[in-house]
Amino acid sequence: MSPVALPSHDVAVLYGPKDLRIEQRSVWSPPQNQAQVAVVSTGLCGSDLHYYMHGRNGDFAIQAPLVLGHEAAGVVTAVGPGVKNLAPGQRVAIEAGIYCRNCDFCAKGRYNLCKSMRFCSSAAVFPHADGTLQGRMNHPAFLLHPLPDNCTFDDAALAEPLSVLIHASRRASLTSGHTVLVYGVGAIGLLACAVAHSLGAAKVVAIDINQSRLDFARAHGFASQTFCLPHVDRAKTSDEQLKRAKENAQAALAEFDAPAGFDVVFECTGAEPVIQMSVHTAISGGKVMLIGMGTRNVVLPLSSAALREVDIHGSFRYANTYPAALALLSSGKLKNVEKLITHRFPLRDTQRAFDLLARGQDEEGKMVLKIMIESDEKNS
Amino acid sequence: MSPVALPSHDVAVLYGPKDLRIEQRSVWSPPQNQAQVAVVSTGLCGSDLHYYMHGRNGDFAIQAPLVLGHEAAGVVTAVGPGVKNLAPGQRVAIEAGIYCRNCDFCAKGRYNLCKSMRFCSSAAVFPHADGTLQGRMNHPAFLLHPLPDNCTFDDAALAEPLSVLIHASRRASLTSGHTVLVYGVGAIGLLACAVAHSLGAAKVVAIDINQSRLDFARAHGFASQTFCLPHVDRAKTSDEQLKRAKENAQAALAEFDAPAGFDVVFECTGAEPVIQMSVHTAISGGKVMLIGMGTRNVVLPLSSAALREVDIHGSFRYANTYPAALALLSSGKLKNVEKLITHRFPLRDTQRAFDLLARGQDEEGKMVLKIMIESDEKNS
Amino acid sequence: MSPVALPSHDVAVLYGPKDLRIEQRSVWSPPQNQAQVAVVSTGLCGSDLHYYMHGRNGDFAIQAPLVLGHEAAGVVTAVGPGVKNLAPGQRVAIEAGIYCRNCDFCAKGRYNLCKSMRFCSSAAVFPHADGTLQGRMNHPAFLLHPLPDNCTFDDAALAEPLSVLIHASRRASLTSGHTVLVYGVGAIGLLACAVAHSLGAAKVVAIDINQSRLDFARAHGFASQTFCLPHVDRAKTSDEQLKRAKENAQAALAEFDAPAGFDVVFECTGAEPVIQMSVHTAISGGKVMLIGMGTRNVVLPLSSAALREVDIHGSFRYANTYPAALALLSSGKLKNVEKLITHRFPLRDTQRAFDLLARGQDEEGKMVLKIMIESDEKNS
Amino acid sequence: MSPVALPSHDVAVLYGPKDLRIEQRSVWSPPQNQAQVAVVSTGLCGSDLHYYMHGRNGDFAIQAPLVLGHEAAGVVTAVGPGVKNLAPGQRVAIEAGIYCRNCDFCAKGRYNLCKSMRFCSSAAVFPHADGTLQGRMNHPAFLLHPLPDNCTFDDAALAEPLSVLIHASRRASLTSGHTVLVYGVGAIGLLACAVAHSLGAAKVVAIDINQSRLDFARAHGFASQTFCLPHVDRAKTSDEQLKRAKENAQAALAEFDAPAGFDVVFECTGAEPVIQMSVHTAISGGKVMLIGMGTRNVVLPLSSAALREVDIHGSFRYANTYPAALALLSSGKLKNVEKLITHRFPLRDTQRAFDLLARGQDEEGKMVLKIMIESDEKNS
Repeated sequence: MSPVALPSHDVAVLYGPKDLRIEQRSVWSPPQNQAQVAVVSTGLCGSDLHYYMHGRNGDFAIQAPLVLGHEAAGVVTAVGPGVKNLAPGQRVAIEAGIYCRNCDFCAKGRYNLCKSMRFCSSAAVFPHADGTLQGRMNHPAFLLHPLPDNCTFDDAALAEPLSVLIHASRRASLTSGHTVLVYGVGAIGLLACAVAHSLGAAKVVAIDINQSRLDFARAHGFASQTFCLPHVDRAKTSDEQLKRAKENAQAALAEFDAPAGFDVVFECTGAEPVIQMSVHTAISGGKVMLIGMGTRNVVLPLSSAALREVDIHGSFRYANTYPAALALLSSGKLKNVEKLITHRFPLRDTQRAFDLLARGQDEEGKMVLKIMIESDEKNS
Repeated sequence: MSPVALPSHDVAVLYGPKDLRIEQRSVWSPPQNQAQVAVVSTGLCGSDLHYYMHGRNGDFAIQAPLVLGHEAAGVVTAVGPGVKNLAPGQRVAIEAGIYCRNCDFCAKGRYNLCKSMRFCSSAAVFPHADGTLQGRMNHPAFLLHPLPDNCTFDDAALAEPLSVLIHASRRASLTSGHTVLVYGVGAIGLLACAVAHSLGAAKVVAIDINQSRLDFARAHGFASQTFCLPHVDRAKTSDEQLKRAKENAQAALAEFDAPAGFDVVFECTGAEPVIQMSVHTAISGGKVMLIGMGTRNVVLPLSSAALREVDIHGSFRYANTYPAALALLSSGKLKNVEKLITHRFPLRDTQRAFDLLARGQDEEGKMVLKIMIESDEKNS
Repeated sequence: MSPVALPSHDVAVLYGPKDLRIEQRSVWSPPQNQAQVAVVSTGLCGSDLHYYMHGRNGDFAIQAPLVLGHEAAGVVTAVGPGVKNLAPGQRVAIEAGIYCRNCDFCAKGRYNLCKSMRFCSSAAVFPHADGTLQGRMNHPAFLLHPLPDNCTFDDAALAEPLSVLIHASRRASLTSGHTVLVYGVGAIGLLACAVAHSLGAAKVVAIDINQSRLDFARAHGFASQTFCLPHVDRAKTSDEQLKRAKENAQAALAEFDAPAGFDVVFECTGAEPVIQMSVHTAISGGKVMLIGMGTRNVVLPLSSAALREVDIHGSFRYANTYPAALALLSSGKLKNVEKLITHRFPLRDTQRAFDLLARGQDEEGKMVLKIMIESDEKNS
Repeated sequence: MSPVALPSHDVAVLYGPKDLRIEQRSVWSPPQNQAQVAVVSTGLCGSDLHYYMHGRNGDFAIQAPLVLGHEAAGVVTAVGPGVKNLAPGQRVAIEAGIYCRNCDFCAKGRYNLCKSMRFCSSAAVFPHADGTLQGRMNHPAFLLHPLPDNCTFDDAALAEPLSVLIHASRRASLTSGHTVLVYGVGAIGLLACAVAHSLGAAKVVAIDINQSRLDFARAHGFASQTFCLPHVDRAKTSDEQLKRAKENAQAALAEFDAPAGFDVVFECTGAEPVIQMSVHTAISGGKVMLIGMGTRNVVLPLSSAALREVDIHGSFRYANTYPAALALLSSGKLKNVEKLITHRFPLRDTQRAFDLLARGQDEEGKMVLKIMIESDEKNS
């Protein structure tokens, strides 16, 4: 079978900061070991938003037009030679990171650390690998995960951010009876709460600077207690800030009636003062999991961590999590997780969706957590 | 303060097979580092039943009158010198195993393996340590675990068998997304199901020879699928039995649509043919957890385990589980766990309770799972 | 570049039991992502010997002429398209097992459990994958491990059996201060001793039925103490045999002055009575590692293992061990490991080599441990 | 037996900065579960030196005269009631930290984190617990570890700093084939090298600012390669310093021909610029072990750690290490470890010993690594 170009479909392409254009593209029939997928749902993520707003995400600037989107699910439309476990019509979650399978990291099962990773929607490699904000795409078959019957496309799109937390929980050895504190209850923080519950956490509490987010978290059972951090001005000196972080930590522990601290702390804000608090709110022998790394260099109360054996672990994306994520979504154990999807847009309105995500609140004052982009393909 | 004998209270004392007498005893004021507890609830366990029926449990025969019972909770009535963290009136779960705190096993946190363990209600050491089927007892303060407010005494008595499964789950590294198969759905097997769910298991299924037990397990959400093993005659030869175990295993895997096997298999029957099946129903790289060890020597399809790296782990009692168990009971995540307590008796009727437990079914045909003995002290 | 057939080279091909023929074959230029290797050294292994003697190994019979050999090293002679990290002239160890890199086991880093594994020299898959007893072969580049400068080809051929023990040690969590008992001091058992020493074992002792093997082990520092098991007749009944195994275990523990047992027990014989002893000679909370699985079904004193939490772990081949194995060989920490290679033969004399291996002793009465086959290519 | 005061013995007592006095004290016969030990050898440690120089160590100032010393070994001279496993004449290592055995940390085997720890020679608790710089002391029997026959008292005194590294290695999961980088090759750093070798490390290299220390490390086989950090002026700004740390890290990795970084990095200096380098010299997925925590707050290149999953672990003292440490010392695997003891003084000259330790070099220009104090008791 020689490659065949399919009829055109919509693609949302980022040309530069806030310059997102809907284009028509064709897709060839899938090559060896790949399948073609009609993308149905794609969730927008904070890193997508960075690219949209600034044309870059941290160190990585786009060097050519880039298709964003990596939290996605769809339907297999064709399979290339060598693909045995998939068939057209199959509903799948799309794992966006294409790892090399050649290096030590891949062999050891830590493929998220693969130096040759081509992550769809990221500008970290060039030529860039396009993401899922398009109607059709070819993708390696080993990265397409069949959906359980009761798993919707939106659920399956959530498997990506959920994977981030499953990975972080594994790295934290989170298990039954642990107490868990989550900093930052955006979509990632709420999923941290949900995963903690699903692993038998004895107590899950949350801290944020936004009371309505916290109210949401408590109202829907993500956190049993919350603490709203006063959004103080930035401290004048580093020492002053460290002192304040320690005081805030003590206030929070008092509020939560957990004077010894928490077994696992998920830091989902990336803000320096919060990272500092994280250390002080972990129990001796506990873990601080850094999920949202927005700050390159951080003044850390390191001896307080080291002398109490509080481990500081970054958690970068995920490896081997999709089957667990889909099973968990299918199990119904992630109570109210569907409430994270606050808004939906068709692919053609992706620009409006990003603008809304940037504002954080819609016209009616409703909080924006996770926006789902729905491809037109669903109806074709 | 010199020791003071308290007014007498009821004690259920086993003198020999089926010879259980209610006696009046006094208790002295608690010595250094101990507290006195008015026992409220004690669950009866399979090992208690063995002692009651045969005057022995496995290798250990009673050498003197013995008080059974080790799944218990009560109220602190007095504290001895040196006790700081407990006060009269405090509700506590009673951890029955008094470990030495002097040996390597204790230092390493594996105190369940302590060779000098004095386990209350067991005849493994002499002089025996009396169990909780009595109105009052002194017990080391470090083994009394305060109850969360919403935790009933019955809940807290369940913390003991629950601990067995928490320990086994830790030893199996059971976590989110795992598939779990449980053999034998008596009280222990049902708790295995419940703990697996609480840790985020993707799928929990059960096998038993008793259809009504399986119906109970499915009706109350412990298992999503079940398989009733035909209660065949014992095979004539060892080879025949091994062959049959393999066939039964394949039939079960087909029924459960899990051809590769399960990540974690909890073997809660102790029966040789079932242990054989356990190996064949574990996935390559999975774990067989032996919870109920009734058979001393077993013909095992060992190369099938070894070549597939199916680990065979015994799990003996528990260590460091009570806080996690109480937190889990308090969290409400163990759905329907209270349904395990099918019958209740006052302490004075302990003998009747054991007789009922031995029959496995009450006069009205209702299945006996867990019997809770309620001390008269509750009302005093 | 179109494929080019190279001039012919010698290949040792097994046609049936004891029917091993030297043939001339050509090899094509290496395909995509493969390299061509001139094999220099191949060690003969017990499984090779089984194939040679019986035309089968356990369940797997040869269905077509098969090239044996999988403990090998050589020199890269050409690289196919896409191969970046290797160049002609490079010295490499050849990892013989070609795993699929598509399945969950591979993604998780447990590729030794891959169901689609094509292991060179094994008849487990058909068409068979040929082994390394040949002058030239093409092999996937990701399975060719560059040698440290001070690593000889013979050393590098030992990386394969060494990998078996590194893998087993990892699965046993063997670390500093552990006491280790090894059953069976053939080549594998001696390497078990060596690896245990290299990981900081506090005490390494050995048991065998052959006093001269034990003498060798002690003389060369592999074991500090040894115990020679009387090669008794097989017991008449299973119970008798279990009883004898327990008595032998107690005698050995007394001899070794280790009454509580050993932290890690490597069972390298596969014999039922020895597997039984293994359980009784492990400390509570210790590990029995089953390395040599010759017996399909085994009567096991399972309650003695389960109640003492002695974990029974099979260990099947290895995953992600070659870099560690080569580093270890290069480090000089495996004292006297080169003494394992007792005999060398050119490829043309492979049949004589197998016959000698089968006898276990050469004409001068010298023990045969590991035979190294040297390809003629070395001199070409 | 009523308590009996023994004839007096020498005690080195710290009254304030550089105010160390030799006093005569008596000791009572050992109480319940304690033994009396004639101290023979005590190594001086950096924390002892801090107390000696400044009357304080970090946050902890002496509030009463304090006996320093916690790296010690001696001979049992008497045992109190309840002590079964020790007898007068027995040679023992003295584990200095008396943990409570009542709290969760102790029950879990992480007793180094016990909040009620009374660590002999530390001012962290009041009343202080006296250390081992005295002729006789009573000490809990469970903290006295019998010496292997070939273990000298000096060896046994080294079991304490060695324990620090065994603990750190366990927390780093250091195992066969790992590459290891050690910052700071004082006594602790040299022991880090030695332990890494004993665990099968593939490569052990060291960085220091002192070339003669590095020469010592290489000459005696502790490190195979070394890198001398230019002892530059402190950078003017935090950013400048971070930039320099990264450049230094890259220079070191180039020197060591380890561009991807090291699996385990032991930071034994506590200096901020070095901690910064540590992160940049760890491989993705590797571990930075913080051993010497001298700096309370540190500017850390945290995103570089987090995004590469470089775990940052403090390591505080040790738990359950003494048996492994003594076994390792006895095994002879710690090559040249006795060379760490560069100087010896009798107890009466403790002040001179501290002064020498502070200078770091003796009158003849010889480097001071570890000073051993020998009690007069040895000769009595």
